[in-house]
Amino acid sequence: MNKLDLFFDPKSVAVIGVSRDQKKVGHVIYRNFLEGGYKGKVFPVNPKLEKIIGKKCYKNITSIKEKLDLAIIAIPADYVPSAVEECGKKGIKATIIVTGGFKEIGKINLEKQIEKIGKKYKMRIVGPNCLGVFVPETGVDTVFLPRYKLGRPKAGNIAFITQSGAVGSVVVDWMSRKGYTISKFVSYGNAVDIDEADLIEYLVNDKKTSVICAYFEGVKEGRKFFEITKKVCGKKPIIVLKGGTTAAGTKAVSSHTGSLAGASEIYSAAFKQAGVIQADDMEELFNFARTLCCHPKPKGNRVQIITDGGGFGVLLADNIIDNKLRLAKMEKETIEKLKKQMPHYVVIKNPIDLIGDADVERYQKAIKAAIKDPNVDIIGLIVLLQVPSLGGEIVDTIINAVKTSDKPIFVISAGGEYTEVLKKTMEQSGIPTFSYPQNAARSMKVLHDFGEDCECKEK
Amino acid sequence: MNKLDLFFDPKSVAVIGVSRDQKKVGHVIYRNFLEGGYKGKVFPVNPKLEKIIGKKCYKNITSIKEKLDLAIIAIPADYVPSAVEECGKKGIKATIIVTGGFKEIGKINLEKQIEKIGKKYKMRIVGPNCLGVFVPETGVDTVFLPRYKLGRPKAGNIAFITQSGAVGSVVVDWMSRKGYTISKFVSYGNAVDIDEADLIEYLVNDKKTSVICAYFEGVKEGRKFFEITKKVCGKKPIIVLKGGTTAAGTKAVSSHTGSLAGASEIYSAAFKQAGVIQADDMEELFNFARTLCCHPKPKGNRVQIITDGGGFGVLLADNIIDNKLRLAKMEKETIEKLKKQMPHYVVIKNPIDLIGDADVERYQKAIKAAIKDPNVDIIGLIVLLQVPSLGGEIVDTIINAVKTSDKPIFVISAGGEYTEVLKKTMEQSGIPTFSYPQNAARSMKVLHDFGEDCECKEK
Repeated sequence: MNKLDLFFDPKSVAVIGVSRDQKKVGHVIYRNFLEGGYKGKVFPVNPKLEKIIGKKCYKNITSIKEKLDLAIIAIPADYVPSAVEECGKKGIKATIIVTGGFKEIGKINLEKQIEKIGKKYKMRIVGPNCLGVFVPETGVDTVFLPRYKLGRPKAGNIAFITQSGAVGSVVVDWMSRKGYTISKFVSYGNAVDIDEADLIEYLVNDKKTSVICAYFEGVKEGRKFFEITKKVCGKKPIIVLKGGTTAAGTKAVSSHTGSLAGASEIYSAAFKQAGVIQADDMEELFNFARTLCCHPKPKGNRVQIITDGGGFGVLLADNIIDNKLRLAKMEKETIEKLKKQMPHYVVIKNPIDLIGDADVERYQKAIKAAIKDPNVDIIGLIVLLQVPSLGGEIVDTIINAVKTSDKPIFVISAGGEYTEVLKKTMEQSGIPTFSYPQNAARSMKVLHDFGEDCECKEK
Repeated sequence: MNKLDLFFDPKSVAVIGVSRDQKKVGHVIYRNFLEGGYKGKVFPVNPKLEKIIGKKCYKNITSIKEKLDLAIIAIPADYVPSAVEECGKKGIKATIIVTGGFKEIGKINLEKQIEKIGKKYKMRIVGPNCLGVFVPETGVDTVFLPRYKLGRPKAGNIAFITQSGAVGSVVVDWMSRKGYTISKFVSYGNAVDIDEADLIEYLVNDKKTSVICAYFEGVKEGRKFFEITKKVCGKKPIIVLKGGTTAAGTKAVSSHTGSLAGASEIYSAAFKQAGVIQADDMEELFNFARTLCCHPKPKGNRVQIITDGGGFGVLLADNIIDNKLRLAKMEKETIEKLKKQMPHYVVIKNPIDLIGDADVERYQKAIKAAIKDPNVDIIGLIVLLQVPSLGGEIVDTIINAVKTSDKPIFVISAGGEYTEVLKKTMEQSGIPTFSYPQNAARSMKVLHDFGEDCECKEK
């Protein structure tokens, strides 16, 4: 078993530093394991407590007789080294230290101590100063923010790793609201041992992960990082949002984590060479990820737009051209056939404008025609759900079309509560949806280009 | 009374073409007036009905004895001219024709007929082929999509006019969900009479409107439009999202509305000269609008960041520089004072990083210091609500700070349900909130630049 597996699928876990105070980090983590669907054994540790939430509490690690796969440390920084030492003696090979107050506030020696102890026992460490690990599939959840404040996404195929706990917490919360799904989440903080390169190497080989997303301000070991990413270029997508792309941002990084962000241009060039996709912001990161996770690569760049709102069709046409894609020209035969099947006022061009009284049947016919037409590579499907004649059943039609089509179908739908509920249903069925034409067109471009920039391509 | 007032605040309204079928346009509109808070008199008209929803139904317009301010026509296109004629005879000076099936499907003569009749009776017309008017303050609501599918925003100071009904319906629905507020909404469709220039001229003088937003694909009368917009340059902001900025988009426009979109570059140059702000997408349109609606103009471009998440601070610092703004350098005195007031691990630089255990008090002190410091022009306030020590009371602190500060404070907060609920509270109190640093930084830039490009400035 790869040692990193112990972080994601441990059979037994100790939470060091549980507390009766429901707001305390140790309490929240222990409760996550009890209530979040974790199927292994979990042992609470606190020398001062006999019981916690009705369960036996252990004085220390050594008083636990069973073998332990993973230790989670949530005690004040000064006590962390001795706890790590104890874990080492017990034979624990994986430890998550969520506690902050190390390198990031200048306590470099305290952090070095942990590193040394970890190495001595050949223990792998995530952290310190992080949120740790969340895996919905196995119920591992060290994110110490209560679920009413921070939602948890369901299991899926997108992995997300982050240097910043703040960015991590926002992303997890936001994914859960949108219905986005996740395979593994790791907030690795100061990276005393396990860094972004280690995690990406692991995730590259992880069968449960089909796209890897990362937020970081700098890479600890550049060569290692780029060797690993180059290997999967064009195979498993890696998408990065890098903080500290300007001098001011870089300066902000140095007072934030004490690490150097490094010249933005060098990173961007290296990313490009290694086929790593760089996103401009958080929303884009997940637009790209959801696209690459679910859609087949198109054979070309010719997009057919289908819409029930003219204005949205116009905006998407603009965005497609802006992103260096083309508008498809369907075959005469397809157009003639569609004209016969539709009311006379439906516009069968590109965009196909099904008009504001469009129903499910009209959508079915148009989608079918676009999938079949040899001049179409990508379908941009605008579905404005506000129109009276479109009910919830359009969702089944879309899910069915996206899942069976060998051409990528980009669903664009915007609005209020009703729309968002239907979009969330699609997301949870693995269909990425977009709120605005702009976002969809950028993602079409990324899907079209994926793998094209790899160095390996040139060999 | 300006004739356009009759569209927004009529004392009596006739709905021509009511129906018992709840899905039908005429039914939905009539119900909107009954249930949406409209305080004037509303008269349903349908020759075939004696009663509708328990109320007396009129055979025709002439059988209504009272004076009518506004007629709403929702009957098939072929019958519209005679209905308009009848309205004219009755002395109605304002008519909204929601019905489609005119110029946009080639029936140019039918549309010309309406134009002629309208002119004969000096009647002003909105439409045809549109959603018409929505004014939350007066309860006028001809948006014929039911409220469960399309939410209605509350009353506020942002006006939105749109050529495209589809874009209009999505925007209204989406504003309602976000808690954005609106003064007047007009979807004017084919603009047989009232066009974007007329509406903007009216809104420029409308005391209830402080920012005007518009979506259109082309301007009907260019000279008129630019004369009007130039007059308010630097005073009342006008923000435009223009569809058809590429050749492909323009072509899509022509099959959509039959109008010409016109060269994108010419429009952009003219917009700039007239001080009209051009948005790149729908989200940006309303980010700019909410900013210009609520925030004072800053004295300079120096931004102080306050955050409880380091990573978010880094991203905002990058975005500020990318948008040609600067990071503020607070006075030594301010910094020293803050250091004394805060725990030792709080970072008092730019960004001020209040760290993940930040509470309301820490925010209060930091905001107060930044407002007071003479080297700060704009405040970028990142509030990640996932952290355990921040409760709902932070919302009151923020509302109070934004409302009393003479410097603009940009609130950035992202996440899931809990965060969105608190953000909606802020929005409805008139505080714009942003989900991502990128959006906030762009809006800071627009606020900073507002009025600088006006030709009038050069005189």
